[in-house]
Amino acid sequence: MNMTTANTARLLITCEDKPGIVQAVSSFLYHQGANITALDQYATEAQGGRYFMRVEFELDHLQSRRESLIQTFATNVAERYSMHWRLALVSDIKKVGILVSKVDHALLELLWRHSRGGLPCEITQVVSNHEDLRESVENFGIPFYVVPVNKENKREAYTKIDELMQGNDLLVLARYMQILDEEFVQKWEMKVINIHHSFLPAFVGANPYKQAYEKGVKLIGATAHYVTADLDQGPIIEQDVERVNHDFTVDQLRELGQDVERNVLARAVKWHLEDRIIVDGNKTVVFQ
Amino acid sequence: MNMTTANTARLLITCEDKPGIVQAVSSFLYHQGANITALDQYATEAQGGRYFMRVEFELDHLQSRRESLIQTFATNVAERYSMHWRLALVSDIKKVGILVSKVDHALLELLWRHSRGGLPCEITQVVSNHEDLRESVENFGIPFYVVPVNKENKREAYTKIDELMQGNDLLVLARYMQILDEEFVQKWEMKVINIHHSFLPAFVGANPYKQAYEKGVKLIGATAHYVTADLDQGPIIEQDVERVNHDFTVDQLRELGQDVERNVLARAVKWHLEDRIIVDGNKTVVFQ
Amino acid sequence: MNMTTANTARLLITCEDKPGIVQAVSSFLYHQGANITALDQYATEAQGGRYFMRVEFELDHLQSRRESLIQTFATNVAERYSMHWRLALVSDIKKVGILVSKVDHALLELLWRHSRGGLPCEITQVVSNHEDLRESVENFGIPFYVVPVNKENKREAYTKIDELMQGNDLLVLARYMQILDEEFVQKWEMKVINIHHSFLPAFVGANPYKQAYEKGVKLIGATAHYVTADLDQGPIIEQDVERVNHDFTVDQLRELGQDVERNVLARAVKWHLEDRIIVDGNKTVVFQ
Amino acid sequence: MNMTTANTARLLITCEDKPGIVQAVSSFLYHQGANITALDQYATEAQGGRYFMRVEFELDHLQSRRESLIQTFATNVAERYSMHWRLALVSDIKKVGILVSKVDHALLELLWRHSRGGLPCEITQVVSNHEDLRESVENFGIPFYVVPVNKENKREAYTKIDELMQGNDLLVLARYMQILDEEFVQKWEMKVINIHHSFLPAFVGANPYKQAYEKGVKLIGATAHYVTADLDQGPIIEQDVERVNHDFTVDQLRELGQDVERNVLARAVKWHLEDRIIVDGNKTVVFQ
Repeated sequence: MNMTTANTARLLITCEDKPGIVQAVSSFLYHQGANITALDQYATEAQGGRYFMRVEFELDHLQSRRESLIQTFATNVAERYSMHWRLALVSDIKKVGILVSKVDHALLELLWRHSRGGLPCEITQVVSNHEDLRESVENFGIPFYVVPVNKENKREAYTKIDELMQGNDLLVLARYMQILDEEFVQKWEMKVINIHHSFLPAFVGANPYKQAYEKGVKLIGATAHYVTADLDQGPIIEQDVERVNHDFTVDQLRELGQDVERNVLARAVKWHLEDRIIVDGNKTVVFQ
Repeated sequence: MNMTTANTARLLITCEDKPGIVQAVSSFLYHQGANITALDQYATEAQGGRYFMRVEFELDHLQSRRESLIQTFATNVAERYSMHWRLALVSDIKKVGILVSKVDHALLELLWRHSRGGLPCEITQVVSNHEDLRESVENFGIPFYVVPVNKENKREAYTKIDELMQGNDLLVLARYMQILDEEFVQKWEMKVINIHHSFLPAFVGANPYKQAYEKGVKLIGATAHYVTADLDQGPIIEQDVERVNHDFTVDQLRELGQDVERNVLARAVKWHLEDRIIVDGNKTVVFQ
Repeated sequence: MNMTTANTARLLITCEDKPGIVQAVSSFLYHQGANITALDQYATEAQGGRYFMRVEFELDHLQSRRESLIQTFATNVAERYSMHWRLALVSDIKKVGILVSKVDHALLELLWRHSRGGLPCEITQVVSNHEDLRESVENFGIPFYVVPVNKENKREAYTKIDELMQGNDLLVLARYMQILDEEFVQKWEMKVINIHHSFLPAFVGANPYKQAYEKGVKLIGATAHYVTADLDQGPIIEQDVERVNHDFTVDQLRELGQDVERNVLARAVKWHLEDRIIVDGNKTVVFQ
Repeated sequence: MNMTTANTARLLITCEDKPGIVQAVSSFLYHQGANITALDQYATEAQGGRYFMRVEFELDHLQSRRESLIQTFATNVAERYSMHWRLALVSDIKKVGILVSKVDHALLELLWRHSRGGLPCEITQVVSNHEDLRESVENFGIPFYVVPVNKENKREAYTKIDELMQGNDLLVLARYMQILDEEFVQKWEMKVINIHHSFLPAFVGANPYKQAYEKGVKLIGATAHYVTADLDQGPIIEQDVERVNHDFTVDQLRELGQDVERNVLARAVKWHLEDRIIVDGNKTVVFQ
């Protein structure tokens, strides 16, 4: 890690919109000796709405000063504006676990990008309900575990998966074809990203490419979203589409769609890792 | 009209897929002395599905030979394959009526493109349920009629609109904010193109931009489709999307969406006028 | 104009990157009682580069306080950081003149958007070297002047155009097919936006659609840029492309390209009017 | 291989445009007992231009009838129209060799797609001028050879590469950072596909992302083309772009650009393998 990264952090803030927030935050950072390298804000209304902010800054000796920084900010700034906030240090490499079933395109895209330095995280393990992808995963030097899931063992299975995933900051469902158990979802709230193989809210549920084929749409898409108890309804992070026509079979829709899925998922995961996403109810604010 | 256009026609064919169709059609045209300038085909299955074909050709003295051509093709080719088919001469300029309410962007796009030679048709009249757009339309030298519609007069209103539209080959709903009466829809089956302001099947019904805003989608779109009795469910002709983010208000989504709407509608209408569309159940085959 | 617009301004700043700029600007605004509604910044390097900032804020009684605001900012903030800066009040409606030749698509797009409230400016006049578009322009209630240009009268012609355009904040070349005279360009430096009908730097010069056809490119594009003495080389504001294939004739490339041109030009003009663009040497910073 | 694939072939035809070609080809196939599953044509002019055709068909016992089919077609059809033509059987799996230097994204995209059944070919070997990618390639079970190239040994190096590549139908330069020697290019004419990391003809030559950065373009792209003696000037097969802005560093342009490169290259190679491309002078006809 170079010095820049070692001394870089991001402050993510949500609060009611009031005058003076930018001034308060930037003054605080200035007086700490920090250099602001990126600043984004968003308010839901012209006045009186919710306010969101992301500030990236550099500060010498950041790691040793972390605790005092947090404490001072809490006392001097956050309390005054009743902020929900967090400080993320770039040097705290996030730990990511991946869940997958049998199809490999989304998984491999993540592993490939990670291996080439394109995803700033540690991929700690891949868990699947099938054996199929063991070799593909282990080739990257990443542990692979199988936890079969069926109607009877669902609660135990997710207890097991939860144990395996302990310590991770993020779980990614890279085309994991099981519906997570509710307790698991609650425990990992806003820490699970799923890739759905359609342009949501069109084609929720099973077989979206077949649905798209039967509907005769002229674009197919994919959606990355946080997982909530309500299937395919969590806050959308990223979406994209590709043009198709009548001539595409369901298989060809799927093949093209998989290219969209892997790009959309990779972007969503990257933005999460770079602390660019703040969840606002059932929507996301993504600072790019 | 130059000689090329005067002697150009398109043959549109639907039938069961069997060997020999291309050969039969191209032989027929060859022996008539025609020159094939474009040929597209599509079969729903590798074998035994439905078959669709569009052939554009040039033939000297086409207009005087039209009747004999139709008769010969019917006897020599179409019967053998139980074809649904039609012959469209480019010289038969299609007549188009437009229905509109108060917002003008989709209407104006059609009028502008038409006035610049970009839509091969005659726009015979514009009918609205409001007075607002009279001047905009009459500036283009096109007649404008107002037919108010409400719950009480619905049947009479559509009888009146039907009378006004007599002789038209196509009706375009350029953001006409009324649900057509069922009898009217049946009478004009597959002759009415609507622009819906969302990427269908997402956000059917009213206020799609508000729905999109509340869902937090990252792309907004528009869909041009033929109108059927089932609202927003008719065969899709064309769709497109634009990228948005959390920062867009409903008004900004609408403003950007209107750009998508007008382009999508203009393309769909143009393809219809160029005889590029064959309806296949609830889907379209569009030969581009 | 509603109160929000009457009291909204934007501060555009360029200077050397140093710590404390955000703090200084936001403190200044806070102590004036302003509410920051948008803030964007960009630095060319992690440290020691050039720094650019755009702040949008609301301030009661803005118009009467303008002079004191400017003076205080100059003394208290701008001098300390040797800033190039300007304050733009939304209530100072910008005046825009358009130059055009014979093709109307780019011109009409601007007039249509303007008439529908989509371009926050006053279009003061349209000047052409041909009579052709008089009626189209006058239909919008906008004055139209003809100033013929040829090799012999070039200097006089641009003196005349300069007189006609006096008082304008921006000139738009909406497919004006003349090369501006050098003195005129210098006088209107970074105040003239041109739409070039190719994806620059590909296909500079004449007949880009013909060049694109001969090269067999698979995408065609358009580029909006500020005009400099160096033809087609000024800072790029916006670009876009559309997919084409071998089957497109030069005319079809042109027809599709014109749709790209009008959208690209409209976006570039809108961003200029919203004070979103800062020129950085031969490049632009566009805060969106 | 299933029976469909075993009995599927494509006929690719180039000739002067004359009446009757579709009839002649489809009659020939009909009388042979073939079923046409796809037919595309293109003529450069309305009349008297060059004519291109791609017909895909199924024919029982295709492999044993190949020779007689070729002979009959040559005598009965091709001679009459002075056709350049070839028959490609889907069962003749094409052999592909890849050339690469140090960056792996384009290479890996091809290997991954191939390993998942997305590229209908045999990848026979990868040749590089560096050792770096040996492990990545050998993990896929594909032979990897190193042939260092420098000014002194250029002719020998390409003699060596030519020997290694013997028997291949196609070579792919997956970011091979050497300029091929002229004799080699001539020998492999229209059998070498290169991916150039810019939207050609913009930014020919070295360091296109740096050029794009300095020019301040708002889109970056990639171009797949056949290699000719004239560097970066061969017939373009496919291009695509992604939107960028002032905030992208050269490294970020490169990172995003690499995603474009790998998709563009994969599409171009796939189309070549599916016999969809006919070269027409310095342009390509791509039947999709």
